[in-house]
Amino acid sequence: MTQVLISEVAPRDGLQSIAATMPTSAKCRWIDTLAAAGLREIEVASFVSPKLLPQMADAVEVVRHALTLRDLTVAVLVPNLRGAIAAMEAGAHKLTLPVSVSAAHLWSNIRKTPEQIEEDVANIVALRNERFPDVKIEAGLSTAFGCTISGDVPEDDTIRVSVRMAELGVDEVGLSDSVGYANPAQVKRLFTRLREEVGNKAGGAHFHNTRGQGLANVVAALDAGVTTFDSSQGGIGGCPYAPGATGNIVTEDLVFMLEASGVKTGVDLELLANARAVLAEALPNEALYGYVPAAGLPKGFHYAKEAA
Amino acid sequence: MTQVLISEVAPRDGLQSIAATMPTSAKCRWIDTLAAAGLREIEVASFVSPKLLPQMADAVEVVRHALTLRDLTVAVLVPNLRGAIAAMEAGAHKLTLPVSVSAAHLWSNIRKTPEQIEEDVANIVALRNERFPDVKIEAGLSTAFGCTISGDVPEDDTIRVSVRMAELGVDEVGLSDSVGYANPAQVKRLFTRLREEVGNKAGGAHFHNTRGQGLANVVAALDAGVTTFDSSQGGIGGCPYAPGATGNIVTEDLVFMLEASGVKTGVDLELLANARAVLAEALPNEALYGYVPAAGLPKGFHYAKEAA
Repeated sequence: MTQVLISEVAPRDGLQSIAATMPTSAKCRWIDTLAAAGLREIEVASFVSPKLLPQMADAVEVVRHALTLRDLTVAVLVPNLRGAIAAMEAGAHKLTLPVSVSAAHLWSNIRKTPEQIEEDVANIVALRNERFPDVKIEAGLSTAFGCTISGDVPEDDTIRVSVRMAELGVDEVGLSDSVGYANPAQVKRLFTRLREEVGNKAGGAHFHNTRGQGLANVVAALDAGVTTFDSSQGGIGGCPYAPGATGNIVTEDLVFMLEASGVKTGVDLELLANARAVLAEALPNEALYGYVPAAGLPKGFHYAKEAA
Repeated sequence: MTQVLISEVAPRDGLQSIAATMPTSAKCRWIDTLAAAGLREIEVASFVSPKLLPQMADAVEVVRHALTLRDLTVAVLVPNLRGAIAAMEAGAHKLTLPVSVSAAHLWSNIRKTPEQIEEDVANIVALRNERFPDVKIEAGLSTAFGCTISGDVPEDDTIRVSVRMAELGVDEVGLSDSVGYANPAQVKRLFTRLREEVGNKAGGAHFHNTRGQGLANVVAALDAGVTTFDSSQGGIGGCPYAPGATGNIVTEDLVFMLEASGVKTGVDLELLANARAVLAEALPNEALYGYVPAAGLPKGFHYAKEAA
């Protein structure tokens, strides 16, 4: 393990979870600075009804702007076929479809049954295959590690849904803990099984830091061979369906941990601080999190060496 | 790995790092509730000059009280022979001697050279052997992972000092990161080497959460076979010599991570909340940290099963 991909999700997961709406121009400037810091994949928007999430009403414009940036994978979240059509027509490179392993959470979240979500995924994959063959599709399995409604989620359920998603033709199956229930032992077990069951369709990890376990879970996931991690600058955001949940793991702290551990991310922490300044200026009333931004880098810190 | 020892250090590392002095009676009540929560080792005081640390002036009284608690290892910190004599005469079960791997930090911290600290350790071990044969002595190697003055600390230096301490007759060599410089890869390497070099004298891990890496480092240390972890209720405290450093890893979050991961700690989180209430009442102006106390336990949470 000498290299990983950090998928920056703050412009989507962060911004959709706060009350304020960031102006489109500020979003674009922020995404520019995130990309300039070396982030190679950014989830820039969610294609949902603007009535539901007015913060994401400018998704098409933001995607079009992000597409002008060189070497950036422009990722978006889409909860349904209508969103997928709009996202692919806008030119997004990668779609993440949230699929809750817990049927109770799925219903509460998007009023769908497991059968209905499978049908959605099948339709989106078919559309992609027919009209947008270059677009990558990830099933993002939420409540993969536990559910605020059902409590424990059997690991067999998570694996069963993963296999089903792979069968339906998605390119990647990621495991997501937006409710902050995951623990390192479980993370290692589940990602190990995921790779055994779906092979190179095994995708990334999406952890929240609700119970302070985010980076600990990353260590466990690295150990299981995971090479893509979602994180959020300043840790903004959270899951609107998980009461009291705090946000995603913090990109700054993640980059520090990985680089200090000899795992190359391609991200420059000084340039990332520039992006944080843009975010802070655009959202002056939002709390930004992160230990490394507060404490600074250790004396003598150096980045991981280039992968051989 | 199914069982670990959590060594609660807040009454020492926490209280010595804040301006307020907790009244002796409150300290005793707090220690009672910590022990009642299932903590089997508590570092209750530091035997230093009351001029230097007035918060620790009641060390003898606190030790004597803690000795009345059943099944509790009463641990203390001692920086020199004078402190060691007082601690052993007071009846402490375990002494931790802070030994900085970095000569610059050692000098800045306690105005001693590496030769002088070795002489101190030798004298303390000789005294123990002669008069207090049941007392355990741990060398706590601070700056084992990096130093705010020197920056990088070569891993060979940490191992060399560890081996020297073992030769001098201490019972355990622990590795400490009070400055928050450690990363998981380094933690795994160093604790693995420590065990190779000093065998069953390899001791515990003392991590601070300055850069948010505390629990991630615990995961790495567990992987290297470490079975004792220092932590601090509410994360209070820090290192007075590490500017901007935040406190120890938070006991509540550590217990949650371990128990959720199937590693038994013997600590009950509900009873730990009682101890936290005593702490909060005694120090109403101190910030208490911790994610699990804020977010609560996940629905369906269960403790690790008894070790076979």
